[in-house]
Amino acid sequence: MPELRKDPIHGRWVIISTERGRRPSDFVVEAQRPAGGFCPLCEGNEDKTPPEVLAFRNNGTLPNKPGWSLRVVPNKFPALRIEGELDREGEGIYDKMNGIGAHEVIIETPLHQESLATLPLPAVTNVLWAYRERIIDLRRDVRLRHVLVFKNQGVAAGASLEHSHSQIIALPIVPRRVSEEIEGAKNFFQYKDRCVFCDIIRQELTQGKRVVSENKAFVALAPFASRFPFETWILPKTHCPSFELMESSEYEQAGHILSDTLQRMNRVLDQPPYNYVIHTSSFPDVDRDYYHWHLEIMPKLTKVAGFEWGTGFYINPTPPEDAAEYLREVK
Amino acid sequence: MPELRKDPIHGRWVIISTERGRRPSDFVVEAQRPAGGFCPLCEGNEDKTPPEVLAFRNNGTLPNKPGWSLRVVPNKFPALRIEGELDREGEGIYDKMNGIGAHEVIIETPLHQESLATLPLPAVTNVLWAYRERIIDLRRDVRLRHVLVFKNQGVAAGASLEHSHSQIIALPIVPRRVSEEIEGAKNFFQYKDRCVFCDIIRQELTQGKRVVSENKAFVALAPFASRFPFETWILPKTHCPSFELMESSEYEQAGHILSDTLQRMNRVLDQPPYNYVIHTSSFPDVDRDYYHWHLEIMPKLTKVAGFEWGTGFYINPTPPEDAAEYLREVK
Repeated sequence: MPELRKDPIHGRWVIISTERGRRPSDFVVEAQRPAGGFCPLCEGNEDKTPPEVLAFRNNGTLPNKPGWSLRVVPNKFPALRIEGELDREGEGIYDKMNGIGAHEVIIETPLHQESLATLPLPAVTNVLWAYRERIIDLRRDVRLRHVLVFKNQGVAAGASLEHSHSQIIALPIVPRRVSEEIEGAKNFFQYKDRCVFCDIIRQELTQGKRVVSENKAFVALAPFASRFPFETWILPKTHCPSFELMESSEYEQAGHILSDTLQRMNRVLDQPPYNYVIHTSSFPDVDRDYYHWHLEIMPKLTKVAGFEWGTGFYINPTPPEDAAEYLREVK
Repeated sequence: MPELRKDPIHGRWVIISTERGRRPSDFVVEAQRPAGGFCPLCEGNEDKTPPEVLAFRNNGTLPNKPGWSLRVVPNKFPALRIEGELDREGEGIYDKMNGIGAHEVIIETPLHQESLATLPLPAVTNVLWAYRERIIDLRRDVRLRHVLVFKNQGVAAGASLEHSHSQIIALPIVPRRVSEEIEGAKNFFQYKDRCVFCDIIRQELTQGKRVVSENKAFVALAPFASRFPFETWILPKTHCPSFELMESSEYEQAGHILSDTLQRMNRVLDQPPYNYVIHTSSFPDVDRDYYHWHLEIMPKLTKVAGFEWGTGFYINPTPPEDAAEYLREVK
């Protein structure tokens, strides 16, 4: 059983995969490219993944058989396990609990050579719709407190499989950075009676210099204090605390701006490796007034060094105004 | 002038290097190895660095000429500039100030092929002594609030030069992670009237299972909630808030355990890339009772993915008990 351990100084939680027990010699593999040849995520290889928990399929096709456009399956090597009790306990001054939670993989397309930037809009919208379905389902589990949706694209960004996919991790705790962000938004609201994200959007749309693109419902922008070169956030223009609480019609708008932003990045940065993470409310929703869901895209262009690890303090060589201009003007 | 910008949600500060203005095409270089051939840090090339601010030299040798065992020079491409005023100001809801601070390079040896793990003990002790001298000097600048000492070893850990060196960055603000750590230690102290680090050391020395090594004054251990495989902390056994406030005799003990730990890592993990960061008190010392300086070594064995960035929540495939055992038994 994996273990969740809490750092007694910072209060940050860490998953220790006590079952995989990596030996020193195992780390040599990390530097290699994802194995070419056989791909367990391709259409026709459905029996190489755990059984699907959600799929968008052609009429008349059977579960775990070909004929799908998107599948969600449990991760074959999950960081957390769904069965069991949390068993919170202490060990002297330390705190730990069982690594209970969900770890799922969203296979975004049956075709190995596609990516989120090349898929047609309905397919991208379906990916977001699948995130929504899974979040709503996982929220029913009272042991869980937060769902993380994220994507690693490219080896340098941590992808171990080439085939386009995202991941969902549902946690029994609220991660430190997430609660910090919620707390920051709460403090701002208590001081100003306004959502800090709404304020950011207003100022950015007025100034324009950090805006990458916008459509009816969303804006993509380079944040004022970008940690990474070409970091880009996608935010709904209208206040909405949770990704899964959007109006149905908004998922297409979200898909449109996500696809558009990734295409711009591909053109300006030549298919960069990247990570994105959806920042959305924890459960239960006590933060509806002041939290505002958004998606943060972080192209992986520089190496994050000791300085950053030690401090959470970043040096960014590309001013966000310059990054936004490159991305804005490419289309 | 570089700019310090504050994220309005998290309150984290970022350095935006407005002068270097990296264009998209500049990032291709990142993936390459440090340039072989000419090395500006080698003995004989003293005129290729800015003039030294500190050096340990043979009697009778001149500044910025050969005959040294260690040099400290300003970074040729500094992330912060030492001249000027902070000029704190707002831009709508955002906060910023000029990027004032120091950015220095400690050249740890005149010889290109040496490393901290191969240098003799007196040379390693001198590196720590140089850190101390520079911190004490930088503390005199009333604009500055915190000094970071860190080392990137190997390309994967962000080193842009192969020649063994560390860096010092002195900041006009206290970075978010640092103030969080100090705050955590303070909360623990208020609750228990004990230093949390002293408690950790007591429990670890009693249990033994996460201890890598110890000498008279220091212990090296794998922390209970290790974020990374083989993460190792070096802590003084006796409570001491600041690195630069140690007794003179303790720097040799610190050098001894640092050298020993790096040698163990080299043997177990085959010369891994790594980062280390010294965690020490901010200025002025209001946290003497509850803060406890230490050095955190993070071998760079896995890729940190989107999950980690989004949440500050880590998945570590190697239990610290296993890592400590490998490192403990190698000698």
